[in-house]
Amino acid sequence: MKNSLSQRTINRLTQYHTILRDYTKKDIKYITSSQISQLLHIDETQVRKDLKNINCKGKCNVGYNAKELKDIIENVLDYKIVKRAYVIGAGNLGIALSKYSKFSEFGLEIVALFDNDKSKINTMIGEKKIYSLQELGEQIKKTDIEIAILTIPNKVAQDVADFAVKSGIKYIWNFAPTIIKTPDNVKVWNENLIGSFLQFCAIENIC
Amino acid sequence: MKNSLSQRTINRLTQYHTILRDYTKKDIKYITSSQISQLLHIDETQVRKDLKNINCKGKCNVGYNAKELKDIIENVLDYKIVKRAYVIGAGNLGIALSKYSKFSEFGLEIVALFDNDKSKINTMIGEKKIYSLQELGEQIKKTDIEIAILTIPNKVAQDVADFAVKSGIKYIWNFAPTIIKTPDNVKVWNENLIGSFLQFCAIENIC
Repeated sequence: MKNSLSQRTINRLTQYHTILRDYTKKDIKYITSSQISQLLHIDETQVRKDLKNINCKGKCNVGYNAKELKDIIENVLDYKIVKRAYVIGAGNLGIALSKYSKFSEFGLEIVALFDNDKSKINTMIGEKKIYSLQELGEQIKKTDIEIAILTIPNKVAQDVADFAVKSGIKYIWNFAPTIIKTPDNVKVWNENLIGSFLQFCAIENIC
Repeated sequence: MKNSLSQRTINRLTQYHTILRDYTKKDIKYITSSQISQLLHIDETQVRKDLKNINCKGKCNVGYNAKELKDIIENVLDYKIVKRAYVIGAGNLGIALSKYSKFSEFGLEIVALFDNDKSKINTMIGEKKIYSLQELGEQIKKTDIEIAILTIPNKVAQDVADFAVKSGIKYIWNFAPTIIKTPDNVKVWNENLIGSFLQFCAIENIC
């Protein structure tokens, strides 16, 4: 089903999920579309439409069962299928992403980090080891991990991406603010944080 | 003009801009819609439509002047209007964002950081000082900065957001993976990194 949902719908569903997780943690049983709408500043009709699309039915005057709705979204988005990945670049951003609780909760498991800095190699970030980048190919052979999260400076981004591809990486989530070239069989997703901020600016007329 | 563009268009324009910046740095004069399309894996017709929308005309068999196109996008998106912000939470993510070159290049200037950790207070991240969170209100009075980038753990997110609002913050870009409540006059943009990743998964059929 996930593949029939638009990107924007997937984005909204993950945000609904964040609220539902908070609600179920606090043992709040029901949630209304109006509450979701207010918390996320999304039109209520849109919320209802999204939930109807994934076959979720609310009760009149009560709302949706938060736990049920959370489970439905998890199923629809395959949250429970673990997707294992490596972080390449153990700088502040790489370390921050390795520790980002929401990733593991939602099925993205960062298994290890890679870096060229000798002072970092063989140290640990929590339970995750930082390996030498030279060991990437060897580790991929052992683990079959094909996803790399690239958190490296612009000036080395293309070289490191080339090396990662040569080592067996098939999917790159690129946080370096530059566009990297890869062969057609390697897919790249450019994270665009400044684009996200400018959308906020445009919507709220900040500038 | 920016306000008449859709969120997705703004997002694509910032990605085109990243390519154009790379091209102009390398002194490459022209770029074609087909080159942009291939680098970003976006349909070429879409690229041409976006550029036509912002009144950018290419030359037959030559393409677009990269420098001109870059300038047009900067004007359309108000890149050159500086938007000053504070980072609240000087952990790995806060530090990474403070150093993120693309922000300052594109008009988002992070002026200082705030944290409660005594060992961090009064230290510097490059040229940016880490202040005690208690000083936030005082600094806002001096600088009129109204944007806060929240990079703090979930469990303190609501308390710190309440404190920031009380201190005078009007816009919050929230990286904590939880939903925070604010009064109606304070606007929140929830950064949704896992949502972004799941879009990638859905498009590429990773899972």
